[in-house]
Parts: sequence; structure tokens; C-alpha cells
Amino acid sequence: MSNDLSILKYDEKGLIPAVIQDAETGAVLMVAYMNETSLAETVKTGKTHFWSRSRQKYWMKGESSGHTQDVQGVYTDCDADPVLIKVKQHGVACHEGYRSCFFRQLEPAGEWKVIAKQEVDPEKVYGKK
Amino acid sequence: MSNDLSILKYDEKGLIPAVIQDAETGAVLMVAYMNETSLAETVKTGKTHFWSRSRQKYWMKGESSGHTQDVQGVYTDCDADPVLIKVKQHGVACHEGYRSCFFRQLEPAGEWKVIAKQEVDPEKVYGKK
Repeated sequence: MSNDLSILKYDEKGLIPAVIQDAETGAVLMVAYMNETSLAETVKTGKTHFWSRSRQKYWMKGESSGHTQDVQGVYTDCDADPVLIKVKQHGVACHEGYRSCFFRQLEPAGEWKVIAKQEVDPEKVYGKK
Repeated sequence: MSNDLSILKYDEKGLIPAVIQDAETGAVLMVAYMNETSLAETVKTGKTHFWSRSRQKYWMKGESSGHTQDVQGVYTDCDADPVLIKVKQHGVACHEGYRSCFFRQLEPAGEWKVIAKQEVDPEKVYGKK
């Protein structure tokens, strides 16, 4: 029986959600999508690569910003339909300048509150292009 | 501008991935799917509720096993298309008896290795039904 990347179950678009977790702090940094090629590239290079559903293209995290992610471990679950990737994050994960993309928390009153500090100015980071 | 659950972007099937994280240890326990109703139920009851894509029905985590999850915080990301839910896990998250569903790690040789201990016998848990 096969016991490698081919056991993973991609959806009808050939995608699998990837949860990216800071290996040091345990913080969940982002969720993005991979296909078989970008996952293989992630494993091969040790840098996270994704498939952008909106832009319909491959991207390496940090290719514009320099805020890359070094892969520390790749995991899958009992159903083999998401992957969890633990990383060392260089800079910040979020294109809006926050350490984690999950910077909004639902308040008891039902509103979303920003709970983190913007660590870098997104315009400065992406203005470099 | 709306600033509540309605800002979330569900996919074409009305679903959003939910990453469930142990609030105490930071371990990612599972990834499952919610729709608007199951997320509202999760927020209202303080127990995680999902939509099963395979069974096409609502389920409360732990409804069979007793291994429920108490919601400690609900977060979303910059794109508002996944949610992250921090929980206090009662028992184990995985129906295979592991604390986390992510109990397999990709080895350098390309094989998946079980890296966690099975904490409960799944047959005993689900045999109760």
C-alpha cells in the first residue's frame, strides 16, 4: 500500500488546505491551499509554496515580501485531506503586516476585534517589488 | 459596514474550513467544515458544531463519543475565509483515538510515520452508541 504524498485526498479542484503553524510558538499563522505540485515543491525546497485560487498561479510564501517560511515538519490527519505544516516564520505571515493572519477575534457582542499589533507596514513590504 | 459572522466568506457549497486548536497546548487538533448554521450554533452553545460533507448532516463534536470541545475563542483571517477556534478538548479529538487528528508526520524518505500514541480505543468509545 502506498505511504507517501499520494495518499493525500485533494478536492475536486485538486487542492488541499494547508494549515501553517509557527513551530516555536504554536500560533496558527495562516491557512492557504496547495495542489500536488506546490506541496511537492514545499517538501523539496523546504520553503512553503501554494496555489493561489484568486490569481490561479503558484506562489512561494515571501517571494515578494521576503517573509519566507522554512518547513520544520509536514503532517496530515486521519482523513488525509488537510495538511499541517510547522514552520520557522521569517518576518510576518500576513500580507496586512500582522504576525498571524488570524488577527481578528469574535467578541461576545458578535463583532470582530483586532487583537494583534501590526508589526510591519504592508506598503513598505510590498512596495519593494 | 457589517462586522459580524456575515463578513465570513463561505465557498460555493456554503462551507468554511475550521481549524480547531487546543487552547492550552496550542496543538492543532483537527480541521473540519462549518456552514453558517453550524458556526452560529457553535457560537451560541459554546460547543463546536460542524457540517459533515460525507454524511451531509450537522454534527456536534463529541455527540457520540462524549469528547466535546468547549469554545474558548473564535478567530478569522485577513481574507475571512477560514475560522480558527480555540477549544478546551474533553477526551481526544480524533475518532481514531489520538489526541490530535494530525498524528502522522512525513518522513524525509517520503513516508508517513505515526508520531503520537493512541490514547483511547476507538471501538470502546464509539461502541457506546
